[in-house]
Amino acid sequence: MTENTQTQLHVPQNEIQLSDGSTFKTYRTAGSLCSHDDEFDYKVGINKLRKHWIEERLARGDENHSQMYYAKKGQITNEMRYVAIREGVSPEFVLNEIKIGRAIIPSNRNHPELEPMIIGKKFLVKINANIGNSALGSSIEEEVEKLRWSLHWGADTVMDLSTGKNIHETREWIIRNAPVPIGTVPLYQALEKVKGKAENLNIDIFIETLIEQAEQGVDYFTIHAGVLHDYVALTKKRITGIVSRGGSIMARWCLHHKKENFLYEHFDRINEVMKKYGVSYSLGDGLRPGCIADANDEAQFAELKTLGELTKKAWAEDIQVMVEGPGHVPLNLIEENMRLQNEICNEAPFYTLGPLVTDIAPGYDHITSAIGAAMIAWYGTAMLCYVTPKEHLGLPNKQDVKDGVIAYKIAAHAADVAKGHPGAKERDDLLSKARFEFRWEDQFALSLDPELARSYHDETLPQDGMKKAHFCSMCGPSFCSMHLTQELRKEEDERSLSKN
Amino acid sequence: MTENTQTQLHVPQNEIQLSDGSTFKTYRTAGSLCSHDDEFDYKVGINKLRKHWIEERLARGDENHSQMYYAKKGQITNEMRYVAIREGVSPEFVLNEIKIGRAIIPSNRNHPELEPMIIGKKFLVKINANIGNSALGSSIEEEVEKLRWSLHWGADTVMDLSTGKNIHETREWIIRNAPVPIGTVPLYQALEKVKGKAENLNIDIFIETLIEQAEQGVDYFTIHAGVLHDYVALTKKRITGIVSRGGSIMARWCLHHKKENFLYEHFDRINEVMKKYGVSYSLGDGLRPGCIADANDEAQFAELKTLGELTKKAWAEDIQVMVEGPGHVPLNLIEENMRLQNEICNEAPFYTLGPLVTDIAPGYDHITSAIGAAMIAWYGTAMLCYVTPKEHLGLPNKQDVKDGVIAYKIAAHAADVAKGHPGAKERDDLLSKARFEFRWEDQFALSLDPELARSYHDETLPQDGMKKAHFCSMCGPSFCSMHLTQELRKEEDERSLSKN
Repeated sequence: MTENTQTQLHVPQNEIQLSDGSTFKTYRTAGSLCSHDDEFDYKVGINKLRKHWIEERLARGDENHSQMYYAKKGQITNEMRYVAIREGVSPEFVLNEIKIGRAIIPSNRNHPELEPMIIGKKFLVKINANIGNSALGSSIEEEVEKLRWSLHWGADTVMDLSTGKNIHETREWIIRNAPVPIGTVPLYQALEKVKGKAENLNIDIFIETLIEQAEQGVDYFTIHAGVLHDYVALTKKRITGIVSRGGSIMARWCLHHKKENFLYEHFDRINEVMKKYGVSYSLGDGLRPGCIADANDEAQFAELKTLGELTKKAWAEDIQVMVEGPGHVPLNLIEENMRLQNEICNEAPFYTLGPLVTDIAPGYDHITSAIGAAMIAWYGTAMLCYVTPKEHLGLPNKQDVKDGVIAYKIAAHAADVAKGHPGAKERDDLLSKARFEFRWEDQFALSLDPELARSYHDETLPQDGMKKAHFCSMCGPSFCSMHLTQELRKEEDERSLSKN
Repeated sequence: MTENTQTQLHVPQNEIQLSDGSTFKTYRTAGSLCSHDDEFDYKVGINKLRKHWIEERLARGDENHSQMYYAKKGQITNEMRYVAIREGVSPEFVLNEIKIGRAIIPSNRNHPELEPMIIGKKFLVKINANIGNSALGSSIEEEVEKLRWSLHWGADTVMDLSTGKNIHETREWIIRNAPVPIGTVPLYQALEKVKGKAENLNIDIFIETLIEQAEQGVDYFTIHAGVLHDYVALTKKRITGIVSRGGSIMARWCLHHKKENFLYEHFDRINEVMKKYGVSYSLGDGLRPGCIADANDEAQFAELKTLGELTKKAWAEDIQVMVEGPGHVPLNLIEENMRLQNEICNEAPFYTLGPLVTDIAPGYDHITSAIGAAMIAWYGTAMLCYVTPKEHLGLPNKQDVKDGVIAYKIAAHAADVAKGHPGAKERDDLLSKARFEFRWEDQFALSLDPELARSYHDETLPQDGMKKAHFCSMCGPSFCSMHLTQELRKEEDERSLSKN
């Protein structure tokens, strides 16, 4: 059963022009967005691809707008068809993965601008970029620009973590300009509403905030419902305690009131909002470790167990779920995180922050975390939340956002290749072939950051003729092994020709 | 049996001053070198720590200067004592690891400036930085400066891969200013001697070059003796053929003469030089894969088998050996490299170049390769050869050298932590504790790159008072989870106090 079978879907791809006239197509996270639009005005908003799809559902009075709801009914939605084209699989495969909870298509019915994407271990590994202002700076315009910038470099989803001024309006313009799912942590805004006093939070203020954000079109919510009252004490011996903002807010609330986490207690009320708008859960890991010494401890795994319980509760209501993961984990403890999450959360997509594999390199945490991210993605994590070089030190600027996104594209792609994802290795092979054949322009074009690759090459060999040279300045002409091998092959060929 | 038991050894360490007045000591790769010496003149050369140790051995007429030779005789050398202090283990432990070939102390008798270090899986993971000019640029002064710079940031050994002008003199001044082992690939200079015509090479020219370099004090030689005539054909189906310069030179020679690799045929003659000067082998992997598609193929593992055979031959003459490894390897094929090398080469230290886990990120290959490097080091690789952001694109400048070294310090340290190396995690824990307690100055001081960490922090909060602030600009004051957790703990303490 398919809805709107008549609708023709066009999924934008990046097209890389190669010197032999052929074109190599790749997944385009920016979708139909044009990142080089000088006339761009964020107050206009982008094309509403899903407008009619959503209207049809509203007209028919659907009360659950989750893709899982449709999947369980056996109905192939346009969102499923869209991601099937994007990922090169059948819509039936997509439907099944969503039905069993192993993948999600975050898609709020009030976010018609969304160009659907899917998160799940059987699909390409995705990456998320965090943007958003803090009390210490950044304007709406800057944040919308960071959104477009991160999509240009390859972010698959974006979280608006604003905690500063104009939270509502900033989010509004981020969503109206976002072809990708937007995630938020509603607790931040709820806390603002009670003037930063965690103990004054309650479920009503929280639900009110949820509805406000769901109305705007947020596609997934981080909900810290797994930070149970009893678990807080388990963090006492930790070096860095609770490092999730949401986790520390809920811990404060629980201890102050000596009561169970109200998000856990009133999970059913949250479910109602999620269903109505089709918002997906990103079950927050409020007790994730903030340093490698605290990794895989009792507090972390106690919360994970609760997240498994909440996953089932959400699934019972046909709500899509992903589960957040650490954080800071040494190499030898990474695999256990993935294994336990798989078991406990029945393969609901895992969405990890890194993890960082050492704590000693502030300023380079895009690297320390890309190491852990590549590994955990290979083990099965579906989406990686990026870390920028500014992590632990300050609010990222545009360059930091780019550096974080690229480091994570590397990690995600390395995992896709290692998992044998169809087509992933093709780009590596094309680039390597171009490298071997000294097709410098093709090498640049096929790389994650063509401008940078070209500028590094041109630093020492800027002349146009050098774009066809059979060497670069690293080894120079007489020590280029590829050049030597090419000559070798040519001579061998000539020799065997003259024999025949 | 210990030589020179009277000699007091002083092993320089980095001392990190913490705000509570305590000092944290770390391994200092730069040894007694002062990197902030404005008066520095490379033509003077540095202190000759080993002068008397070597003189004693020469006086007594030792004909084999390899540390393995002494280890097998049960003699604890000053070099062994020195590295034992450096690594915090007993000299007996060091002796045994060297005796069984699982570790090496590269140390040419003509390199008295060397401050000994050890390479082996039971010790801290080491990193190597490649420097050296190409035909397209760089002066002696620049290269000596790159040496000092890479040691400042943490390189454990340095390879001089010069292929440009003044090869001999450049190497001389690098060695005279190096407290770390210097490695070279003598084939490069031998090729220069035959004006770049590989087919004109022969064992006599090669041995002559070996002696020339051994006389200067090179501590380890990369020798491509495993590229056998028959193996060259195995690379025919590869995307990038042979990417090792040494490998492609030897392949050319073999095919031209239709003869076996002269380095393999005359390995005994090479052994004689190695013994006499105490130079260590770094058995080159001339057939390493140059792209992930070529990883773990027949050519690569055929050569590895020959390297295993050569390891045993060298050990029979009491010569120290490490074995070079790839290159470009996808995440899922990394472990096999380490396992096979362990089996085939009887745990001789593995020394890998990365490996890069994807080919699509030229300009970021310090990151693509740090991912593979961290993983293979965790599996047991003893030394990692760094890759800079300029890899595949051009000759690295100072900033590239620094970026490469730091990415590899991260990989090596992450592996040390994961392997449970004594003391490795202590620095992580101290930094995390400082982070939790908002001791910003201590955080900066304990990090791999204090200047950068500080500058990132100060970009948004430059005021001096902010060095004691209980937040940074990433989250701002009211959303700092660590601040919240600290308050929480304080209140809890007060509550339990008031109860008692």
